[in-house]
Amino acid sequence: MEQVRVTIWNEHIHERTEPAVAAIYPDGIHGAIAAALGAMDGLEVRTATLADPEHGLTDAVLAATDTLVWWGHVAHDQVADAVVDRVQAAVLGGMGLVVLHSGHESRIFRRLMGTTCSLRWRESGEHERLWNLRPDHPVLAGIGDAVELAEEEMYGEPFAIPDPDELLMIGWFPGGEVFRSLCTWTRGAGRIVYLQPGHETHPTYHHPDIQRIIGNACRWAAPRIRGAAPTSLNAQPREPRTAPSTGDA
Amino acid sequence: MEQVRVTIWNEHIHERTEPAVAAIYPDGIHGAIAAALGAMDGLEVRTATLADPEHGLTDAVLAATDTLVWWGHVAHDQVADAVVDRVQAAVLGGMGLVVLHSGHESRIFRRLMGTTCSLRWRESGEHERLWNLRPDHPVLAGIGDAVELAEEEMYGEPFAIPDPDELLMIGWFPGGEVFRSLCTWTRGAGRIVYLQPGHETHPTYHHPDIQRIIGNACRWAAPRIRGAAPTSLNAQPREPRTAPSTGDA
Amino acid sequence: MEQVRVTIWNEHIHERTEPAVAAIYPDGIHGAIAAALGAMDGLEVRTATLADPEHGLTDAVLAATDTLVWWGHVAHDQVADAVVDRVQAAVLGGMGLVVLHSGHESRIFRRLMGTTCSLRWRESGEHERLWNLRPDHPVLAGIGDAVELAEEEMYGEPFAIPDPDELLMIGWFPGGEVFRSLCTWTRGAGRIVYLQPGHETHPTYHHPDIQRIIGNACRWAAPRIRGAAPTSLNAQPREPRTAPSTGDA
Amino acid sequence: MEQVRVTIWNEHIHERTEPAVAAIYPDGIHGAIAAALGAMDGLEVRTATLADPEHGLTDAVLAATDTLVWWGHVAHDQVADAVVDRVQAAVLGGMGLVVLHSGHESRIFRRLMGTTCSLRWRESGEHERLWNLRPDHPVLAGIGDAVELAEEEMYGEPFAIPDPDELLMIGWFPGGEVFRSLCTWTRGAGRIVYLQPGHETHPTYHHPDIQRIIGNACRWAAPRIRGAAPTSLNAQPREPRTAPSTGDA
Repeated sequence: MEQVRVTIWNEHIHERTEPAVAAIYPDGIHGAIAAALGAMDGLEVRTATLADPEHGLTDAVLAATDTLVWWGHVAHDQVADAVVDRVQAAVLGGMGLVVLHSGHESRIFRRLMGTTCSLRWRESGEHERLWNLRPDHPVLAGIGDAVELAEEEMYGEPFAIPDPDELLMIGWFPGGEVFRSLCTWTRGAGRIVYLQPGHETHPTYHHPDIQRIIGNACRWAAPRIRGAAPTSLNAQPREPRTAPSTGDA
Repeated sequence: MEQVRVTIWNEHIHERTEPAVAAIYPDGIHGAIAAALGAMDGLEVRTATLADPEHGLTDAVLAATDTLVWWGHVAHDQVADAVVDRVQAAVLGGMGLVVLHSGHESRIFRRLMGTTCSLRWRESGEHERLWNLRPDHPVLAGIGDAVELAEEEMYGEPFAIPDPDELLMIGWFPGGEVFRSLCTWTRGAGRIVYLQPGHETHPTYHHPDIQRIIGNACRWAAPRIRGAAPTSLNAQPREPRTAPSTGDA
Repeated sequence: MEQVRVTIWNEHIHERTEPAVAAIYPDGIHGAIAAALGAMDGLEVRTATLADPEHGLTDAVLAATDTLVWWGHVAHDQVADAVVDRVQAAVLGGMGLVVLHSGHESRIFRRLMGTTCSLRWRESGEHERLWNLRPDHPVLAGIGDAVELAEEEMYGEPFAIPDPDELLMIGWFPGGEVFRSLCTWTRGAGRIVYLQPGHETHPTYHHPDIQRIIGNACRWAAPRIRGAAPTSLNAQPREPRTAPSTGDA
Repeated sequence: MEQVRVTIWNEHIHERTEPAVAAIYPDGIHGAIAAALGAMDGLEVRTATLADPEHGLTDAVLAATDTLVWWGHVAHDQVADAVVDRVQAAVLGGMGLVVLHSGHESRIFRRLMGTTCSLRWRESGEHERLWNLRPDHPVLAGIGDAVELAEEEMYGEPFAIPDPDELLMIGWFPGGEVFRSLCTWTRGAGRIVYLQPGHETHPTYHHPDIQRIIGNACRWAAPRIRGAAPTSLNAQPREPRTAPSTGDA
């Protein structure tokens, strides 16, 4: 099987400024996910962070990325316009995108969804149970009836997203809320996955089921036919039509 | 029945600069549509154009608009950021949006779709037949098996949109192309309709079936429950979460 | 506004054989729902039960029904083939169908879905909270953030249905389960709603929010364009094509 | 890569009774498709026909089938109830199903769709052009902008199907019609593909693009996680709930 080239992007602020977070993720959230995915078959992993030049997401990096994983929280507004544009174009051209937890409010996710992506939340550290609605789906390969997390931030409905193409998991919280916790969309030639768990103060990305879902999602969202996106499915608008033409866009 | 308050927006450039277009639409495309819709039951119609202050789309106008109709072509880039933001917020808060023809590349449509919305095209003036896939749907009330247009610009697939919630019509062109010509989406609390016909050099908006579809679409996309959108479904992002909280977004 | 003609169908067995159920629904589940809907504006209500000739669902009754409500549980297999065929044809021709609770395993619902419609369940009488995902939707007009039921049977995922066109509510149970509790589909010219609460041993159909949702659903699922379904969208298969033809189906 | 085990089912009547059809398909439509798919990497092919005992679709055959291809036309009603039930259960349990051309009115396709699956048609032998809407999709791997068939029966909208999960191709006919020619659905754990071309009097299944699409569809619809379907997603209804229970369905 061909290798899937994964780039894990993290804003990497909490881990450098909050000792409690650093204790959980000494190598950063990106480092923890990279270690887990790097040990899986068929995945080649690199990382990038906000502080890197061009946030580590140059044209060259994106051209060599099959699936991009995104974690951000307090610095969404620091992500440059040019990088948001570039990532959007890459997704529409076929690159996979796996958005984690608070990345629901990232500029790139809101750009691709067209909505606010807001939700109800509570930093309670309560238990979460995620129900598997689609045991037939590759993103849930190896996952049983439900995933149990001992502690997680509560995210609740309504989640202001366009209806997903596929709803794969629903989360349950003891405080009384529910959430569409694992969803997929297609935009242009690219596939997008949103996975809800992963608040920085909980060891969620050390949980083997969460690691497995992220790894599965990276394989699933990778381009299925490389280079297959036609001009009309990429991010380049056609020229203004100020004169008659008989050609294609 | 409550009145539906419609605002028809037009960039209004072709009609002022091209005699051939002015001959077809002496009162502008917006004027032609306004005259047709104004004669229909249950619709209150106003118009706005690019040259108006704030393009005629102030907060006050949008607050008094149930459905906004949009026609633009050569001046998409002249629509101000603030107006695009404001219209997006209004749609997510429940206002209907009916995007016509070359409006597929407008900033507001691409903003709400998250894709390029590009397509294949040819200014051939050929015949178009639009097939009715959903005679049960209110947007197609009063429309038969098909709508025939004697001349129209060809728009062809692939059309780079997210899969529509509903595909209502498919267009057929004698040159050999097909197009998803009438589609709907829900974004936040708002409903969006795209209708393909309407090149400025053809008398499309004088055709009674096209007028009827636009009028139907304005009624259908109008908010069904005024003021019902919760905070989490409108365009306001919640506050940055830099400190623990126990409250809702 | 035109009246919506509602027929409420109930198998009506528990209420006649179990005193505990009869105490809650002395006039039958159909009677309780009919009383509630009959007091709402714009609804004309009649009832029908399994024991009636042709189960009360003759051609004449269906022809005079805009939306059919269905409650069944222990006698799904006693519903005659001819009646299932007739109801399916009516739905495909435009009649609305609102399936309640254990009706998920009714012959008509499984016929229209094409799947088993099975689910996870537990007769625990625990609390249920139903979250409103779509405050903009007519079926949820007048409903707040959530509906609280003091006691209800637990229904849990995975629910073996085709992905709904719209997911309107998700149910939460204290035992740890979640459920897609309010869903819609379109089949042919007809609209179908499934609403999960309503076990016979609980007073669910006396709850004003549940009554309101059922009433809203009856209005929403009613045909929007009477008589608009073409031959090709109704339940009659075309003739076998054993000879060349130039006509339409 | 694991082999995909394909069973090609054909009613096999036209080829035995009509010399014109036999001249095109001397080994039957199933034979032509089997020869094409058998030459492709990763596919193991067998065939079955109506005249075989149990139509060749025994429990053992279905248990050893990853994807079933279906062609039928004049003998849909001769397919036994038990076989329709068995194939439906297999699909809901994860088996892929690729329905060809006039199979749109087969009992199994209508059973899984819940609608009439009727359409508009004309045996004209005219040209067909099928547009590729999703060059990123595995079912269209190796297929260009469009597929051209020199002669084919016209199938036109409205096609009375539930909205497909994915619309992959739209067909164009010179007589003025359009058709949703390549669609996918998920039902239970199974994936279903419908492909429109293939009237028995035209050499459609000898066309390399059509062969390629069928082969791609067989790979794509094959179970992605063998044996992963839980009880609640298979075709077995749970027991009637005449007594309280605390167990799962």
